[in-house]
Order: sequence, then structure tokens, then C-alpha cells
Amino acid sequence: MSLAPMVIEARQAVQRTASRRSTREWQALDAAHHLHPFSDAAALNAQGARVISHAEGVYLWDSDGNKIFDGMSGLWCVNIGYGRKELAETAARQMNELAYYNTFFKTTHPQVAELSALLAEVAPEGFNHVFYTNSGSEGNDTVIRMVRHYWASQGQPQRKTIIARENGYHGSTIGGASLGGMTYMHEQGDLPIPGIAHIEQPYWYANGGDLSPEEYGLKAARALEAKILELGAENVAAFIGEPIQGAGGIIIPPSTYWPEIQRICDQYGILLVADEVICGFGRTGEWFGSQYFGIRPHLMTIAKGLSSGYLPIGGVLVHDQVAKVLIEAGDFNHGFTYSGHPVAAAVAAENCVF
Amino acid sequence: MSLAPMVIEARQAVQRTASRRSTREWQALDAAHHLHPFSDAAALNAQGARVISHAEGVYLWDSDGNKIFDGMSGLWCVNIGYGRKELAETAARQMNELAYYNTFFKTTHPQVAELSALLAEVAPEGFNHVFYTNSGSEGNDTVIRMVRHYWASQGQPQRKTIIARENGYHGSTIGGASLGGMTYMHEQGDLPIPGIAHIEQPYWYANGGDLSPEEYGLKAARALEAKILELGAENVAAFIGEPIQGAGGIIIPPSTYWPEIQRICDQYGILLVADEVICGFGRTGEWFGSQYFGIRPHLMTIAKGLSSGYLPIGGVLVHDQVAKVLIEAGDFNHGFTYSGHPVAAAVAAENCVF
Repeated sequence: MSLAPMVIEARQAVQRTASRRSTREWQALDAAHHLHPFSDAAALNAQGARVISHAEGVYLWDSDGNKIFDGMSGLWCVNIGYGRKELAETAARQMNELAYYNTFFKTTHPQVAELSALLAEVAPEGFNHVFYTNSGSEGNDTVIRMVRHYWASQGQPQRKTIIARENGYHGSTIGGASLGGMTYMHEQGDLPIPGIAHIEQPYWYANGGDLSPEEYGLKAARALEAKILELGAENVAAFIGEPIQGAGGIIIPPSTYWPEIQRICDQYGILLVADEVICGFGRTGEWFGSQYFGIRPHLMTIAKGLSSGYLPIGGVLVHDQVAKVLIEAGDFNHGFTYSGHPVAAAVAAENCVF
Repeated sequence: MSLAPMVIEARQAVQRTASRRSTREWQALDAAHHLHPFSDAAALNAQGARVISHAEGVYLWDSDGNKIFDGMSGLWCVNIGYGRKELAETAARQMNELAYYNTFFKTTHPQVAELSALLAEVAPEGFNHVFYTNSGSEGNDTVIRMVRHYWASQGQPQRKTIIARENGYHGSTIGGASLGGMTYMHEQGDLPIPGIAHIEQPYWYANGGDLSPEEYGLKAARALEAKILELGAENVAAFIGEPIQGAGGIIIPPSTYWPEIQRICDQYGILLVADEVICGFGRTGEWFGSQYFGIRPHLMTIAKGLSSGYLPIGGVLVHDQVAKVLIEAGDFNHGFTYSGHPVAAAVAAENCVF
């Protein structure tokens, strides 16, 4: 490569980092080169981003030395807190041993096999298989392809539609944002895609009117039944919901909601998908939000708490009832270069037993 | 959490890992719990996966001690080879300093600011901004939302359609697989989504007939012009292609192809997107495949070589012409929890100056 000057310049740039920059310098670099997620770039650049430079336990420090209580746990993900040295040691050891290998071509590695077995141990009964992604978005995107493949493999290819909820959040890919019910996301990029339907969210405080929470919980759940009947049950593949809505405003449904959703899914034979990206891995006091509410899903999307955010990793936990069909269905033409990444898998396993 | 028995069981499971298992044991765990990407699970489980347990330089070792030359470079991603201790040290140091923080709410961190500045240095002139994702799939998914947002922000919301190529590969999300032209992927999950059109791939060996490579390169490129005219140029947002098709079969286009594609994109004023996930970061002898072919794209999707696969990270490099519009366009309602992850960003920066 005739890249010598560029490489030297780049190396110098990184070496400069070793000498600590000022807050203003980092803000200037960030404004000049970094497009932030879910942000108004012009407004942010004018103001200058706060530079988070260190974290320990439940505390953050910015580059001006301010100590900040991290009430948001990163982005609802640092379930075990910052600065756990065991995870850093695991990451470094694994990176030296096997920094990467793919799981596509009849190969696996010890780290992904061990994490898969561990997740089967901590997940509710019947969840014995995992499909890996790099994020919750990719997990929910995978759910769309997986449930359609499941039904097509059983001779019901017309079962395509997935019912989700207004103001639900299922990530930012085209698929994830379509499942989500965020209108401000749908307005950018021509969403949702076909085959996704949305029903009312179980938000008693805003929508309950004169009903008690329990009465309203039943009413909101029955919006699912009405939508199934409208679409025709034979065309519905699945229902997806967060046990507790996260980005929508930490909306805890009335106690009557999930049991009625479960009854409706059972009655019409549609798959129930729990998006456990936020609720999973202890956030509700149980391993999964589904357990807190007594839901029996067929698929659970996972990310965030899976690694406590120390490294990007996500996935879909698959119940035996679905896994059995997928395993016998031939090739599932889906997956990601970093599916089950050995370093991320090793760190997630260490995190899950912390 | 009333999880004591489960946690103890899980901890024991991980501790068992410390004592090296046999190949058969790992194969059994893998078959029982791990759903592989792009695989026939029943066939794989019956055969047993090869367990890759160690790697160094350009060599892999499996759990039976076989030394294997890694001709595929992981999955076209381990550009600097395995076992680079500097990257492991960087990962561990960063994980102890700041294992995670988000870049959503007017915050940044030194690692993502530094990587962004570094990428602007190594990228072709005019590429000064980066939007981060966790994979090439999410990068291409981002491209769809970004180019539609770009045009809508300029009063052309009808410019939605993205033209891609048959047998192209752009990842496995709903968006990425729709851009891709793999029929075996389209058949699972009801793809492609609306607003994606496909043209002939520039595959002279299969499709060139009596034409010389140079004649056929022009012909294949002009399929783009024909498609633009069919759709109406005012409805076309962008054209996307891999400089060299990777998953499609390492298809190197005739020398006449890209210059003609460039002429057509320029003439009709549509955005040109180079999927550099495989070609980027030195794979063609230049930093980017676009430079090898002399293409001037508006967006470049990156992943794989960005971190040499040591950690999951991807993104979209954005040319000033597009960035200027996005920055002034208000909120872009898109992004991922792990966008610009500090550990992945630190490792990618170390990788890029290696």
C-alpha cells in the first residue's frame, strides 16, 4: 500500500491522544467529525457535547472533573455498574486467544458455545437456543425474518403480519423502527414497512379515562384481539411487546394486561415475542421481565444487560417450540459477521454470572 | 433478586469452562443451544461444528490441534491478523476507564471523538463525518434512512428509491437484505421492502456473452441509467454498490464500469453509496475500494476492517455535501445504544494506525 504518509499522519493523531486533550478540543473534534444518534447536530455542535471520560460503579466523571450519578445506567444497560475489572481481564485474555472467528461455515468456538449453554440455564424453561446479533435492533430485525420463516416452513407463508404497539420501541433499523410505534421515527425513511400493524399502548395514565387500571388493562389488551380479527388470524405471525415500555416513558401496564395478551395469543395460535432488551438481565428483579409478569413468550429479544453494555452484543432467545421447527427447516439465510463474537460472548458470560 | 440458585448454577457453568472441555463436549453444547447464521441447523448438528479455539497471525487452530491457514481472514475482516496484543491492551485499558457511555443525550467521550477525527484523516477528501453502527448491516440500514432523510430535508421527499444490484450483498437486516440482491435471502421474510430496485450485476464472466470486458462494463453500467429513466430520476435517492462484490463471488467489475456509473450518478444528480464493508481498510491496496476505482461516493458504509473484527463496530462515512444538509436538518431520529461504543472505538483507532 502506498499509504505511508497517511499512516504516519494517522499514527500521530492517535499518539496525540495519549496526551490528554482539553474539553474544548474534544468538543471541537466531536463537532467537526461525529454525527450523533437521535440528535440535532447543529444545536449540539453550537453548544458542545459533554465529554464523559471515566466511570466507576454508579458514577460518571466528565472531562471537567464533574462527578455525575448515572441514574440512566448508561442507556439502561450497565446493569452491573462500571469498572468491573474481571470483564476487562476477560476481554483482553480472549482477544489474545481468539480475537474473532465466524460461526457461518460449520465452525464454532468455545466462547459462543459456553454463552449459549449459560443463557439456556438462566432463561425460563424451554428457552434452550440462542441466535446472536450485535444489538437489540438487529435482534428485533431478526425476529421479523425468523417468525416469517417459521410460519413459511410450516406451510403458512401468508402468516406475515406482526402486531406491535403505538409508542413501543424496538430499535432503529428499518425493521426495528417499523415494529416500534414512534411516529417521529416513521416520518424519516418511509416507515413502517408493510406487514406491521400497531395497536394502542397500555398507558392507563393517558388513555384510561374513567376506567380503573384493571379495567383499562383488559380493554387495551383486547385491542390485540380486535386487530387479529380485522387482519384474519391466519395472516398474523406474531405479537411483540416490551414487558415494560422503556423509551416510550417507562410505562408499566396494568396487572390485567399481560395475562389477557397471553390468553389472546394462545387462543389464536400466534407467536408471542417479548422484547427484553431493557427488561432483561435483572432490571425487574427477575432475570427477564416476562417472568415478572408471568408471560410465556416464544421468542425473547436480548441485548443491553446481556453484556452490561461493556461490549456490543444482542440476540434472540428461542423457545423449543420454535427452535424445533427452525432446526428442521433447512438453511436460515440470515446472520451477521459478528454473530456470537468470541470477545463479546466471553464478556457477556462473565457479566451474566457476576 | 431471588435468583441465588440460578446464579450459583450459572457461575458453576462458567467455572467449568476454566477446565478445558473436549471437542465433543463443545460440539454438544453448540448443537444443543446455538443457532448459527446462514446454516442448516439439523445438518450442522448431526455433523458437529469445527471448534476454532486459538488464532495467531494468519493461522487458526481448532480444538483438536489442527493448524489452519485462514485464507478467508475470519470473514474478510481480520485485516491486521490475529493476536495483536496492542489491541487487547487497549480494550482492557478502555474497559476499566469507561466501559460504556451513550452518545445520544448531548454527550460524547474522548474515544469516539478521536476515532471520528482519525477516520476523517484516512478517508478521501471531503469525508469528514461519521455515523456509527455495530455492523455493516446496520450501516446499510442507516444509509436507507439517511438518504431519504437527506432528500426530504431538501424538499424532495419523493426521492425514496434506492437502486442496488442483483447478487449484491449489503447485510442481513430487513433493510440490508433488501438492498442486497440475494434471492435466497429475499425468499425468507417477505423481502425486498418497497422502494428498492435492482439492476444487473457487472459480472462479465457469466453475462458478458460476445462482448469484451470493456464493452460489457459499459453495458452493465447503463442498466443504471435505464432504471433511473424507468423510475423517473426525480424519484431516485441513491445507487449503492460494493466496489468489488464480496459475498456474490469476489466479482471484480470491468475497468469501464465504475467510471460510467459515476457519470450516470453525476448526470442525474443521485447519491452514490459505496459499500466499503469488505473493500475498506486496505483490502484493495488503498484505504478504500472507491479509491482503487477512482469513484467519488457521497456515503461509504464501513465495518469489518474498521476494527479488523476484534470488536463489533460499523458506520457510515458521510461526505461534506451530505453532512452539511444533515447537520442543518434538525433531529435525525436514528441510532443505536452502542453507536460509537468507547471500547470498540478505542480498538478501531488502534487498529487503523497499526
